[in-house]
Amino acid sequence: MDQSILSQWLALSEHGALPSTLLTRLLKEFASPEETLDSPALRTSGVSSELRMRICHALQQAVVPPYTANALLWSQRSGNHIITIRDTAYPPLLKQIVDPPAWLFVRGQPEALLIPQIAIVGSRHCSVDGREVAALFAADLARRGFSICSGLARGIDTAAHLAVNKARATTVGVLGCGVDRIYPPSNLKLAQEICERGALVSELALGSAARAEHFPRRNRIISGMSLGVIVIEAAERSGSLITARMAMEQNREVFAVPGSVRNPLSRGCHRLIREGATLVDAPEQVVEQIGALVEFQLEALVTPEAEQAAAQPPMLMCDGKSDKEARAALQQIGYDPVTVDDLIERLKMELPALHAILLRLELSGKVRCESGRYALG
Amino acid sequence: MDQSILSQWLALSEHGALPSTLLTRLLKEFASPEETLDSPALRTSGVSSELRMRICHALQQAVVPPYTANALLWSQRSGNHIITIRDTAYPPLLKQIVDPPAWLFVRGQPEALLIPQIAIVGSRHCSVDGREVAALFAADLARRGFSICSGLARGIDTAAHLAVNKARATTVGVLGCGVDRIYPPSNLKLAQEICERGALVSELALGSAARAEHFPRRNRIISGMSLGVIVIEAAERSGSLITARMAMEQNREVFAVPGSVRNPLSRGCHRLIREGATLVDAPEQVVEQIGALVEFQLEALVTPEAEQAAAQPPMLMCDGKSDKEARAALQQIGYDPVTVDDLIERLKMELPALHAILLRLELSGKVRCESGRYALG
Repeated sequence: MDQSILSQWLALSEHGALPSTLLTRLLKEFASPEETLDSPALRTSGVSSELRMRICHALQQAVVPPYTANALLWSQRSGNHIITIRDTAYPPLLKQIVDPPAWLFVRGQPEALLIPQIAIVGSRHCSVDGREVAALFAADLARRGFSICSGLARGIDTAAHLAVNKARATTVGVLGCGVDRIYPPSNLKLAQEICERGALVSELALGSAARAEHFPRRNRIISGMSLGVIVIEAAERSGSLITARMAMEQNREVFAVPGSVRNPLSRGCHRLIREGATLVDAPEQVVEQIGALVEFQLEALVTPEAEQAAAQPPMLMCDGKSDKEARAALQQIGYDPVTVDDLIERLKMELPALHAILLRLELSGKVRCESGRYALG
Repeated sequence: MDQSILSQWLALSEHGALPSTLLTRLLKEFASPEETLDSPALRTSGVSSELRMRICHALQQAVVPPYTANALLWSQRSGNHIITIRDTAYPPLLKQIVDPPAWLFVRGQPEALLIPQIAIVGSRHCSVDGREVAALFAADLARRGFSICSGLARGIDTAAHLAVNKARATTVGVLGCGVDRIYPPSNLKLAQEICERGALVSELALGSAARAEHFPRRNRIISGMSLGVIVIEAAERSGSLITARMAMEQNREVFAVPGSVRNPLSRGCHRLIREGATLVDAPEQVVEQIGALVEFQLEALVTPEAEQAAAQPPMLMCDGKSDKEARAALQQIGYDPVTVDDLIERLKMELPALHAILLRLELSGKVRCESGRYALG
């Protein structure tokens, strides 16, 4: 988005002129705050004359207010991005939830947000077994081309992010603090590594501290960006169950990994399964269940938003360019399995784009993936 | 059943005059083999003139054939019983399956077959964890008044039977060999202990050896006698899954206890849950699910079979006598929890009958059970 218009929207938010849900709606509908004032549709958007006055007032300020100025400065530094709901880089599934954030502060690779995502969440106080299962699912699904989304918390979240980094694949961490801060501080190194191939995301103002009340809102982003949520170890009353319930409300697939009935941290997962979550004991079961869904979601993305974004940089997975790339990738895959590294070498493609193409080919049954190596299906 | 008539039916079977399903049907419909010949309904029962000839021939034999003579002799020894499908002592739920056995050879306490049963089955090669979970479920459900049915096999079956014996409650073992043999031989002592308060059951001819082909038929009796089947640890292709599928076909509740995804013996249980079995991680969840079902089944038992059996010894749980006993029991239970031993002392009742009454009171919400002690609900 044009920096001066972004500046206006940020300023509008900084002045507290609008409730956040209304801000998101205006941002979706209008190219700039000024346009909201000009538009005859303004009244139908639910903007009262008082609010209109406030918008006018905010726009008339000659000086860019301090937080907005700071945020713009931050976004100009390498690796930092502010992605508004008008931008094609905004995570497509997140747009569909009831209360999407107006914008996201992003560090790292914003393309990571366009790869089909699967969330892995669970207890901060997980068992060794839980940690290993999280790593197994995260690495396997990441190798298949999904981006793994989690909350950078201790325990299961950390295990999932770490395993994806180790597999040199894409993971996205959604924070309950400003994206320029890292919580817990022990995950500072992990956060930096995530940014190399994936992204850190927060809707909270830069500099915001981690607070208990931020986490449920953070969790709606994790599930909202994802095709499905996998819960691994969760106590009966826990944040992970909140994420899972949110995911159900958002019509996302919810998966739960069972465990020993003598492990109190299995209770939450077992309860979810009784409430309708799908029991999975291997990553391929997630892929089976989600396969059809991905195709469906991709169809949904092509019309009408992709058309609207035709003049913008291409979205992954759903345009002519990636069709061509998919054909090129297919020519480089034979019946002898090849590694992703080989394919990067042969195709001269970036990892996230390649992953997206491989996932698409796998889901359509054209190629199959075994232990991270690809062959004709 | 009258010994001379029983002798005729056994002889008919020994002569191989009839396929076993037809034998069961005739036994259900007619008071004696002779009656089948006299009855005008014979043709509608599907008995061809050739079969009729064979029945005539078998009945005309002056000498009781050797196996029949031996079986009758066996049944006269203390603790041994032959219970035909015409007898009120025949397990009521088993009557309802598609292919019930014509008769059962029973050792121990035949009343045990009239208590509401829950089956616990699982791997012969179970883990320590599985064994402990089986013991926990078996002892808890037995203390609540259910009879625990299993197959006397190594592993989960043995753990379940042992735990019930330890709790001095009722368990039923269904064998894949003649009831006068014990397989595996290592369970000889366990089998003897089961007979003290419970029963051993087989439909196979006395003296039959344990054979692989016997076990699926044996499993249909386990699930057929039970309100529900709990599977604890089962490999992906295992006898326990066959029992569970049979139970589903017989419209029994199927419960599966989950476990670590890294335990190959959890795979079968997890698959069952995905196929519709109820995940349980605590025995009370079985009771919750099965409560309404028990009431329903008991209703079904009162009409019309109980009426027909009015002249016979009383069936547990569904006659005037046990109503009176239930009221007596209720008077001995206050708000201070009492043990089952106290109640036996106060009411001068046998354990199986008391268990049945306590279960009925618990399911109707009149009493509650905590750690094996009963108080007003």
